[in-house]
Amino acid sequence: MAGEKSFLIGDLPGLTPQLGRLVSMMRYVRDTTRDAVAGLGVDELDYLHDRESNSIGALLAHVAAVEEWYQAATFDGRRLEPSDMGEWGAALDLGEAARREIRGRPLDAYLIRLSAVRERTLAELSSRDDAWLEERSPFWAGAPANNHFKWFHVFEDELNHRGQIRWLRARAARPGNISNR
Amino acid sequence: MAGEKSFLIGDLPGLTPQLGRLVSMMRYVRDTTRDAVAGLGVDELDYLHDRESNSIGALLAHVAAVEEWYQAATFDGRRLEPSDMGEWGAALDLGEAARREIRGRPLDAYLIRLSAVRERTLAELSSRDDAWLEERSPFWAGAPANNHFKWFHVFEDELNHRGQIRWLRARAARPGNISNR
Repeated sequence: MAGEKSFLIGDLPGLTPQLGRLVSMMRYVRDTTRDAVAGLGVDELDYLHDRESNSIGALLAHVAAVEEWYQAATFDGRRLEPSDMGEWGAALDLGEAARREIRGRPLDAYLIRLSAVRERTLAELSSRDDAWLEERSPFWAGAPANNHFKWFHVFEDELNHRGQIRWLRARAARPGNISNR
Repeated sequence: MAGEKSFLIGDLPGLTPQLGRLVSMMRYVRDTTRDAVAGLGVDELDYLHDRESNSIGALLAHVAAVEEWYQAATFDGRRLEPSDMGEWGAALDLGEAARREIRGRPLDAYLIRLSAVRERTLAELSSRDDAWLEERSPFWAGAPANNHFKWFHVFEDELNHRGQIRWLRARAARPGNISNR
C-alpha cells in the first residue's frame, strides 16, 4: 500500500490552502493506520496484552469515535456522548467498557466505520475555508483552541494510538499470544 | 505543565504562515512528549517490557535522532549515519544496539539532547519560508516528498512513539516491573 501514499503536504483540489495541508496530513496518517492493521484477524484485533491494555480493534474504533466527536464539536456545535454513537460508543473513552463491548468484529467492520466517519469530515471541510480554521472557542481548562488545533488533535491522537497498534500487533501475532480465546 | 501549552495552530512571530502552523504543531507535540516522561527515574527510563521492546529512554533519544537526521537531510543536503551522532547514534535505528547503549542516563540527559536539537531546527526554519516547504526531492521508494512532508514526518514519528511511551510508562511505574535491575 506504500505506493499509494503521497509524501507531499500541500494544496488539494477544492480545498483552501491551510485546509489542503491539514487534509494532506490527515490522509497520510489514515493510510498508515490502515497499513498498521492490514490483514489482521479477529483474534488479533481482540488481543489484550494485559488487564489494562486496549485491543487493536478498540483503538481503531476509538480513532473513529474521536473523529466523530470533533465533527459534532466543530461542525454542529454540540457535545457528543458515548450513547450518541450506538454500538461504537464504548470506544470513545476506551478502558473497561471498550474491552467488553468492542470485540468479535472483523477488520472490515472497523475500516467501514472509519471510512464512513471520514467521508463526512471531508464533505464538511470542503465547504469551509481557512478563516474557519482560525475560529476559536474555549477548550481544555478553558484555554482557547481554534478549529485548526482541534483537527490537528484528531490526527495527533490517531498517531499516538497507531504507535500503540504497531507495538501490540508485533505481540498479538506471536503464536500462543492470543489471550482472548 | 498543561497550562503552558497553546491550543492554537497559527501564525508565530518571525515565521511565514505555513512555517508558523508547522512549528505550532511541532511545539505542541514536544510539550506532550515532555509531559509523558515528566518525573521518570533512570529505572523507568531503562525499563524493558520484553526482549524486543524499546525503553522509554531509547524512544526519547530516537525522537532527537530522527529530528537531527532530517536537519541534515533538509538543511544540509546530506545523509546522516548513526556514527555521525556519537553516543546517541544507536537511537536512530532503535532495537538491539539502542537497548545496549542508550541506558543508565537521567531524564535531564534526554531533555537536554532534545532541546539542543530543537534549537537548531527552529533557528534554521526561521531563516526559511513557505516556498522552501514546497521544495521536493526523491524520497521513500523514489517518490517525491516536499520539505513540508519531511518535517510533518518528524513530528508524526514522535507522536507514534509518544503513544508507546505512555503505554510503557503505565507499566514501568508498577512496583516490581523494573526489569533492568
